[in-house]
Amino acid sequence: MGLVTCDIGISVDGFVAGPNQRLEEPLGDGAERLHRWMFEQPEANAEVIEKITAAGAFIMGRNMFGPVRGTWGDSDWTGWWGEEPPYHAPVFVLTHHPRESVTMKGGTTFHFVTDGIEAAMRRAREAAGDQDIAVAGGAQTVNQYLAAGLIDELRLHIAPVVLGAGERLFADVGDLPLEPVAVSHTDLVAHVTYRLNR
Amino acid sequence: MGLVTCDIGISVDGFVAGPNQRLEEPLGDGAERLHRWMFEQPEANAEVIEKITAAGAFIMGRNMFGPVRGTWGDSDWTGWWGEEPPYHAPVFVLTHHPRESVTMKGGTTFHFVTDGIEAAMRRAREAAGDQDIAVAGGAQTVNQYLAAGLIDELRLHIAPVVLGAGERLFADVGDLPLEPVAVSHTDLVAHVTYRLNR
Repeated sequence: MGLVTCDIGISVDGFVAGPNQRLEEPLGDGAERLHRWMFEQPEANAEVIEKITAAGAFIMGRNMFGPVRGTWGDSDWTGWWGEEPPYHAPVFVLTHHPRESVTMKGGTTFHFVTDGIEAAMRRAREAAGDQDIAVAGGAQTVNQYLAAGLIDELRLHIAPVVLGAGERLFADVGDLPLEPVAVSHTDLVAHVTYRLNR
Repeated sequence: MGLVTCDIGISVDGFVAGPNQRLEEPLGDGAERLHRWMFEQPEANAEVIEKITAAGAFIMGRNMFGPVRGTWGDSDWTGWWGEEPPYHAPVFVLTHHPRESVTMKGGTTFHFVTDGIEAAMRRAREAAGDQDIAVAGGAQTVNQYLAAGLIDELRLHIAPVVLGAGERLFADVGDLPLEPVAVSHTDLVAHVTYRLNR
């Protein structure tokens, strides 16, 4: 059986999104700087980037899928990623608003799960088979899965940026059995992989 | 001329000291777990540990030197480290309380600096000559030096521990020109070294 993984970009002061999240700036002020390494150094970080989308199924929170609660529940909103999202696999979106599944180009299908994080995990496990499941974000979703003990491998991509405010990873997760198992870096990021051993 | 360095232990959620700091638990609840790698794995981390005390002069805040404001200003308090502190060099303690210098065994002398962080840096530079100067802590002192742009190399020792509350590194420092230049790890710590380029 595959692992449940989570890749997440984070500032040196622990924020995964900046303050003032809004439609035009969904990750909040300054947060695009968390991901410079990915866009400016795709070759130097190729191995890391490849692993981020290598899962057999994905789970994400509704804030990662769409901008404002309710606005896409009955609309034709199909995510931030255009016609061919980078997942190429089933994506389970946590939401309170039931909706028919949406099939995109390139193998991505968005399924909307209204009965909680464990139900989403079960459906993702069924869809992924022996492959990994990736918890794709955002922070609240990752924190819920961390607190529930459902993540096996957490891969922090620490940007050399001080955000000063915003949304925190590890908020209210309790203590975690983290063990660093791999590190690497470029001048725009330090990658630290943790196993969660139970 | 040597660098101004800073080594500091930090939790994955960004705290360098736990909540409820007090005389019996000067680093606050749970914070001794930040330093397990140092005490339990001195061999595996030998190179890192050696660099921490390799400076020609040290600067520390008054909370790192002694427990409660005022209690050691006129007392015979000589720090937490016994008769032979691990510094073996001049240590400049930031304080509002003037006091005669104190010479300890093994080459450590505590000097008490009442005219601010830049004065302490000047005196440390004089004492260190061509050697490095280490800003030894605590968090408030490190944050003051970071905000003032006076640190050249920041070495974070990230413990796989979620503290959840306590004293934050990077609080109110503004943005910093950080560049990761080296990483390593054991199962109890991830070391990330940053250069601050101006």
